[in-house]
Amino acid sequence: MKIAIAQMNFTIGHFEKNKRLIIEAISDSRQRGADLVVFSELSVCGYPPHDLLESDSFAELCSKSVAEIATHCNDIAAIVGAPVRNQKAFGKRLYNAAFFLQHGQIQAIYRKGLLPTYDVFDEYRYFEPETDFQVVPFKNKRIALTICEDIWNLGEPALYAVNPMYELTKQNPDFVVNISASPFAWNHLADRFKTFSETARKYQLPLFVSNQVGGHTDLLFDGSSGAFNPKGGLVGSLGAFTEGIEIFDLESVMRNTVSPVVPAMADWQKCKTIYQALVFGIKEYFGKLGFKKAILGLSGGLDSALVLTLAVEALGAENCMAILLPGPYSSEHSISDSLQLVHDQKVNYDIISISQTYGSIIDSLNVNFAGYHADVAEENIQARIRAVVLMALANKLGYVLLNTSNKSEAAVGYGTLYGDMCGGLSVIGDIYKTEAYSLARYINREKEIIPASILHKEPSAELKPNQRDTDSLPPYEILDKILFRFIELNMPAADIIASGFDADTVHRVIRMVNLSEFKRYQAPPVLRVSKKAFGSGRKMPLVARYPE
Amino acid sequence: MKIAIAQMNFTIGHFEKNKRLIIEAISDSRQRGADLVVFSELSVCGYPPHDLLESDSFAELCSKSVAEIATHCNDIAAIVGAPVRNQKAFGKRLYNAAFFLQHGQIQAIYRKGLLPTYDVFDEYRYFEPETDFQVVPFKNKRIALTICEDIWNLGEPALYAVNPMYELTKQNPDFVVNISASPFAWNHLADRFKTFSETARKYQLPLFVSNQVGGHTDLLFDGSSGAFNPKGGLVGSLGAFTEGIEIFDLESVMRNTVSPVVPAMADWQKCKTIYQALVFGIKEYFGKLGFKKAILGLSGGLDSALVLTLAVEALGAENCMAILLPGPYSSEHSISDSLQLVHDQKVNYDIISISQTYGSIIDSLNVNFAGYHADVAEENIQARIRAVVLMALANKLGYVLLNTSNKSEAAVGYGTLYGDMCGGLSVIGDIYKTEAYSLARYINREKEIIPASILHKEPSAELKPNQRDTDSLPPYEILDKILFRFIELNMPAADIIASGFDADTVHRVIRMVNLSEFKRYQAPPVLRVSKKAFGSGRKMPLVARYPE
Repeated sequence: MKIAIAQMNFTIGHFEKNKRLIIEAISDSRQRGADLVVFSELSVCGYPPHDLLESDSFAELCSKSVAEIATHCNDIAAIVGAPVRNQKAFGKRLYNAAFFLQHGQIQAIYRKGLLPTYDVFDEYRYFEPETDFQVVPFKNKRIALTICEDIWNLGEPALYAVNPMYELTKQNPDFVVNISASPFAWNHLADRFKTFSETARKYQLPLFVSNQVGGHTDLLFDGSSGAFNPKGGLVGSLGAFTEGIEIFDLESVMRNTVSPVVPAMADWQKCKTIYQALVFGIKEYFGKLGFKKAILGLSGGLDSALVLTLAVEALGAENCMAILLPGPYSSEHSISDSLQLVHDQKVNYDIISISQTYGSIIDSLNVNFAGYHADVAEENIQARIRAVVLMALANKLGYVLLNTSNKSEAAVGYGTLYGDMCGGLSVIGDIYKTEAYSLARYINREKEIIPASILHKEPSAELKPNQRDTDSLPPYEILDKILFRFIELNMPAADIIASGFDADTVHRVIRMVNLSEFKRYQAPPVLRVSKKAFGSGRKMPLVARYPE
Repeated sequence: MKIAIAQMNFTIGHFEKNKRLIIEAISDSRQRGADLVVFSELSVCGYPPHDLLESDSFAELCSKSVAEIATHCNDIAAIVGAPVRNQKAFGKRLYNAAFFLQHGQIQAIYRKGLLPTYDVFDEYRYFEPETDFQVVPFKNKRIALTICEDIWNLGEPALYAVNPMYELTKQNPDFVVNISASPFAWNHLADRFKTFSETARKYQLPLFVSNQVGGHTDLLFDGSSGAFNPKGGLVGSLGAFTEGIEIFDLESVMRNTVSPVVPAMADWQKCKTIYQALVFGIKEYFGKLGFKKAILGLSGGLDSALVLTLAVEALGAENCMAILLPGPYSSEHSISDSLQLVHDQKVNYDIISISQTYGSIIDSLNVNFAGYHADVAEENIQARIRAVVLMALANKLGYVLLNTSNKSEAAVGYGTLYGDMCGGLSVIGDIYKTEAYSLARYINREKEIIPASILHKEPSAELKPNQRDTDSLPPYEILDKILFRFIELNMPAADIIASGFDADTVHRVIRMVNLSEFKRYQAPPVLRVSKKAFGSGRKMPLVARYPE
């Protein structure tokens, strides 16, 4: 038996496109001799559709797509993902389902049992969990069909009372299929491999995983679908951030003896995968929204240089516009380094001074500001004027403004709301400052793409004379480690201190993170590359006291 | 037996304050002869704590609070809400629980069975649902103790497979206690009354409800706790948006024969309750964050006049600062009407023209803008300069900027991101424009507080010559009805058209709503007064195709 894994890039709610992709892949797989072709979770509508699932017409469009796709399943079977109505007398209106299509019609429907509702996942908001699981018979074989989380109930204690694989294995399946929508995080790839490998090995069954590829606003899906032998070894993978169809021979996979090897990740590999992810994320955001051109402000610092470089790779230099916005406290090197960057990358640019406008605003406020020392108010004015200019150009000329804030500054609130926090998409908002340096060094590994002077200068917002980031923040090497422990590892202050950090610094950093929740509430969506990004996966109350 | 309902205003995560409130209310209730005092859901930590629940230290602080509160429960019993650890081998880490405290210790723990996970609720993100329900014995009585949603499983089909009251009634309870955190919506009060009344009547048991009061960022809790007789009649209520302790005699409530009367709501009552809610919401946001002073831009239009009036009521005129920001296209009446308003309300104000700064920005962009017609870019510049000025004053002088956008314009994207969409809190972002007029007329019911000229002028953004809102939007009487059907009632376009609206207009409005998701993603938190507000209760994908 030949099983095709189709790793496709769906657009949420774009039924025509998704249907066409699926029907073409069915036809292609049939021609290549496949008996069965497997698509990803909610393939018909794209994942995650969020509250679109609450509209009746959306569910109907899903059903219509499945029905039409079924008519193309002759001489081949297909598994597609779509919501299905709950017909029971209780429960949420929908199930998250996998449709088994054969002989031109729906032969079986498998309903998802385990509904992830944590971090970026909110499936119980829409779906009823199924508790009854049946294998799907197909050509004298039995398929243990599962959906994503269904095979992830591995923690101690287990997150769910139910384990679909226990029920399915009682029915003597011949192989496991898992259709999934498992988002990317650079350090999630090993977890995923481990889960797939252990599932195959535990049940001594071949496992075929079809994962979605695509960028859905903040969430990036890398795909990396593949087939595992009954020992847990990876027989073949479809690669990351790319579409494809791969055909596996079931009997070969069963006989295959490759051992499981958890992919190790060197630092440069981490950089490479994050680089790929961010470029892909920009491409997807623009491509799926029908935009072509990006604009951003170049400060002369690392973050904007990095975002420009990623945007050039994603959209082409000809579609990127860099604006240098010198102000009263900008250094000469902020201009000269930026000019070198745009020249090297062949990017259109302009220099628009904000000094006159800054003077005008200050002038209009001089009665109100009289008697007060200069403080963060004046700094914010500069950042906000830059945003006005950038947004004016974006509005007039049809650009999307890229946000250039990094995760460290977003975490501690070292950014101006409605100023440098503006933008349609935050490209590096899930990248700590120290990771931004690593990424820049990775980009420069063969030749100097980001000028060395930008990498080596001391970080400064240049919003007052002789300002340095370290005037108000701990050194990034320390800050980022504390932030990683607090945000990603969810460690309380005491444990972070116990792991070797200065108590005052830890408390100060945590206080800064907590006090800037209100800023992040209004921040743009952030391309998620870690296991805990700011945005939909981290939901903190604003009006609250936080334990410190 | 005497049962005290304590309707208290907790602050999320403020364990000291919450504990003090609870202990004082226990002492007070004991002095007033109560046998039992009932607090609201998650009273110990405040509701909703969101991802604070994911930190171990938070759960520990909850446990410590409960333990300390228990020591005060001598000669009186108390029911408090707090998370409790899940000790089972599976499931989420916590339950949402009610602790029955007596004889100085925890006597019983009831765990919530039905976890609302829709609209603004996300309880399954944190809590395991309980499936085993036991009455709590107390002084020869049996209490059917329930938590909020536990008695709300009334839909057809029912939302949950489990019904805690079915299990509890098998154990012959004498009365029902429901501790809840049911947020305010002007049209939710009748639903709530109906649910409580029907629960009491169905099981022929007295029902005592303790609901939280307080503003938690966007969510407002009105309290309106009360006691119902076994016929479903309301014996007594604790009122809306106020703290209080009310003592009910169980035997009197049992014998009480008041009939259930669903509270009707006249239009002025709707206005009154919304007015109360918004004033309360402002008070709470400022009070709990430790802020005193608000600033806002006065345009001469209805929305900012309304927000100023609400802020004056909430914070006092002396704590409000109004800024008139005339620009190149501002009318004379925008100034004169605003001046009348600030004089009448005795509010400090200033007039800061944006024209010079606007000229300066346009000047700096003249090369880039050459050859282009004036369009929305120039309009947005004006709105954004106003935001820069307002935020500068807020930063320098310690004000919080109030956002003045209404729900109609937020819905269709008729607002400038980083311009008039700025602010720490959106006061009327859940009020349609036509409701804003009703609210203003309600405020003016006895004397003219908002100048009549502001109510009677035609709405205009005044960002270009002779601009009117109706240049780009349908009349608000039509627009708001379409929006209500689309947003609150979740009706598809076809049904809205069938209910008597022009097809092109309906499609255009829906398209505008969908295309402005990206703006609302970055909007401030909105005081929620309807059943479907923008913000945490409405979660739409940005990169997507929406069915039209």
